[in-house]
Amino acid sequence: MKPIKVGLLGLGTVGTGVVRIVEGHQEDLASQVGSPIQIGKVLVKDVSKSRSIHVPDHLLTENAWDIIDDPEIDVVVEVMGGIEPTKEYIMEALDRGKHVVTANKDLIALHGREIKAKAKEKRCDVFYEASVAGGIPIIRTLMEGFSSDRITKIMGIVNGTTNYILSKMSQEGAGYEEVLQEAQQLGYAEADPTSDVEGLDAARKMAILATLGFHADVSLEDVEVRGISRIKKEDIAFAKKLGYEMKLLGIAERQDDQISVVVQPTMVSTAHPLASVNGVFNAVYVYGEAVGETMFYGPGAGEMPTATSIVADLVAVIKNMKLGVNGQRALTPYKEKKLKSDEQIAYKNFILLHVEDKAGVLAQITQVFAEYDVSLDSVVQQPNPNNPDAEIIIITHYASRANMNKVFEHFEQLSVIKSIKSAYRVEG
Amino acid sequence: MKPIKVGLLGLGTVGTGVVRIVEGHQEDLASQVGSPIQIGKVLVKDVSKSRSIHVPDHLLTENAWDIIDDPEIDVVVEVMGGIEPTKEYIMEALDRGKHVVTANKDLIALHGREIKAKAKEKRCDVFYEASVAGGIPIIRTLMEGFSSDRITKIMGIVNGTTNYILSKMSQEGAGYEEVLQEAQQLGYAEADPTSDVEGLDAARKMAILATLGFHADVSLEDVEVRGISRIKKEDIAFAKKLGYEMKLLGIAERQDDQISVVVQPTMVSTAHPLASVNGVFNAVYVYGEAVGETMFYGPGAGEMPTATSIVADLVAVIKNMKLGVNGQRALTPYKEKKLKSDEQIAYKNFILLHVEDKAGVLAQITQVFAEYDVSLDSVVQQPNPNNPDAEIIIITHYASRANMNKVFEHFEQLSVIKSIKSAYRVEG
Repeated sequence: MKPIKVGLLGLGTVGTGVVRIVEGHQEDLASQVGSPIQIGKVLVKDVSKSRSIHVPDHLLTENAWDIIDDPEIDVVVEVMGGIEPTKEYIMEALDRGKHVVTANKDLIALHGREIKAKAKEKRCDVFYEASVAGGIPIIRTLMEGFSSDRITKIMGIVNGTTNYILSKMSQEGAGYEEVLQEAQQLGYAEADPTSDVEGLDAARKMAILATLGFHADVSLEDVEVRGISRIKKEDIAFAKKLGYEMKLLGIAERQDDQISVVVQPTMVSTAHPLASVNGVFNAVYVYGEAVGETMFYGPGAGEMPTATSIVADLVAVIKNMKLGVNGQRALTPYKEKKLKSDEQIAYKNFILLHVEDKAGVLAQITQVFAEYDVSLDSVVQQPNPNNPDAEIIIITHYASRANMNKVFEHFEQLSVIKSIKSAYRVEG
Repeated sequence: MKPIKVGLLGLGTVGTGVVRIVEGHQEDLASQVGSPIQIGKVLVKDVSKSRSIHVPDHLLTENAWDIIDDPEIDVVVEVMGGIEPTKEYIMEALDRGKHVVTANKDLIALHGREIKAKAKEKRCDVFYEASVAGGIPIIRTLMEGFSSDRITKIMGIVNGTTNYILSKMSQEGAGYEEVLQEAQQLGYAEADPTSDVEGLDAARKMAILATLGFHADVSLEDVEVRGISRIKKEDIAFAKKLGYEMKLLGIAERQDDQISVVVQPTMVSTAHPLASVNGVFNAVYVYGEAVGETMFYGPGAGEMPTATSIVADLVAVIKNMKLGVNGQRALTPYKEKKLKSDEQIAYKNFILLHVEDKAGVLAQITQVFAEYDVSLDSVVQQPNPNNPDAEIIIITHYASRANMNKVFEHFEQLSVIKSIKSAYRVEG
């Protein structure tokens, strides 16, 4: 049986994992797809570099066109990352009828529409299971497992770095800077952690999930993002005391085809299954009108988990090749994208205020909430051990963001409020 | 566009859900598959019975052959349950080139091989996502999401009735009989609960999951089963005190192609993600050599969750019809089934002994473990508040079942041991 030849763009951590699985599971894979799978060529930056796995010299190249122009290569697996020249390579590979498997969330979030259109035109597959939540097959689940349902909410812990940091802060009562440094030393955070800690990485993944879950073309600019870098350890202590864990959640919601997608630090009730997802693990909670609550949990990154998803995509591509149906199973968004306004976005809020410790303050503050039609779930006033102010902790019922913004504006003008120390979304 | 016609065998709870989704999500479904989906005919026991949904009279029939012999029906959805005449109907429908979607775990566990062989011969699809863990798309996940990996362990809470009972016993300290009665009143347990509480229902589901996960033909007789009816509330209290929750787990394991599948009450460490799966929810934990730890959580039963899985299968069938590739994506087990012997099955054990309260007893008992090469993780001896005996609680390290059996046999002959009060597997 003629082997299927794979061209690998990139041989970093994930690329190495792909080679390991394709070689190590050769027999099992061949039993499933009906042919051997061969690594045909591998693009690397430096062919002379020493590596943790052996790849024969004649398979290595520093020139991507050796792969893209090779008519023997059936499938291109892209694990080099970045936007350019990666996008050009993928577009050109598709132009030459090669199927593409990629782990590149940035590329799919930014240029997914164009890439998928080219693939459709050329009857090629473009699969990207590994681009979101590493080893968790969440893209398949949204596309196929829940194809019959109307998904109304997707909440994800989709960035392992920030979940590691927040878990550590919660478990050890440690501060953000301290834990970030530790994460950097352990290799869980990059030297420049901006993309992770400011929520951009999570935002890209949420744009991908929302597009698939809601059948509308959600792009990165549609995602409102707030990162974790300003979370204080006191906030996490407060959260725990009230029965919540602080998590960086991506939250995509739909109501009557109106969509909102945000990434923000969120206080999650400990009774919610997302609250106990700790360390570098990822989890995606999906709510469907018919199915109800579901959650998918697993490793969000790493050599072998990510490679598992890539090779599962490769298996799917090859099965389609055997059946002659490549490029015909992609989901094309068929709904117009309508974004919710601030009036339509509603959630529960946690607010911590420092106020003057004198009579009538609480009455003034609760009056502001009443004025903008925000009802309160709980209010606690307590003396502040560190200074003469008092602390007021408020948890609201569901309130529109528009109304909450008015509350905050009004607070700016209230002289009894010294400062709005913290404000977080609350879920669960 | 010509509509796809579905024949529905059964209009109970789940069948009603299927009609609701097919009708309620008509537009979304048509956008995905490219044609309208119509309920063409429905088999019921009594056409004159009043129902919670309206189905036009002319679609109802009491004669299955009106569906099986109808050349207009493309897909048969079987939600009537039972083995006969259901199996005959499915085989005959396949013989006439109709695709089949079923929620019938009993039928797939007992006759799956024969049904799949017929489907393959006739180039028809047989899908059964709803047969295991209701709304959780675990069958797709094993077949496609993890197609690249070597799965070595599948642990499932796959029976909602028993999980409800054990959760209640744990949360309220209540006894088995009491909670079972309550579950029966709430409709979570049947009048004759044997199939659930004795683990048979879970065993059928584990046979299906092990077959898919391990690519070997695991049948119901290969599953060792022990139910929950003899669990005492004291056992659960002990478990909690030691940091465990009692769960009825299905556990399928593979090591070097040697397989074991069991269903048994298991003490699960509270640190394990399965420990916090409560009530009627289901969850399946999957360990793959490459991906590592994953878990899939959701509703295990119910009208709409189960119908979600059935209609997702229906969507897959119809997409295959459009591409002309039905019957070509099934996984055929390609590995010989080799069952582990008692020497090869190993796990940690919890043992509660009542012993004479006198000097040297503990030494005698620990000597027995040593003799059969079972090493101990922890041993606690304490006075028994209720009688003059002492209680000894032992947790072993991994020990082969063969050796543990020898330990228990030896214990029978030790006069200082009054009784082996409890013995459970320990996980996590």
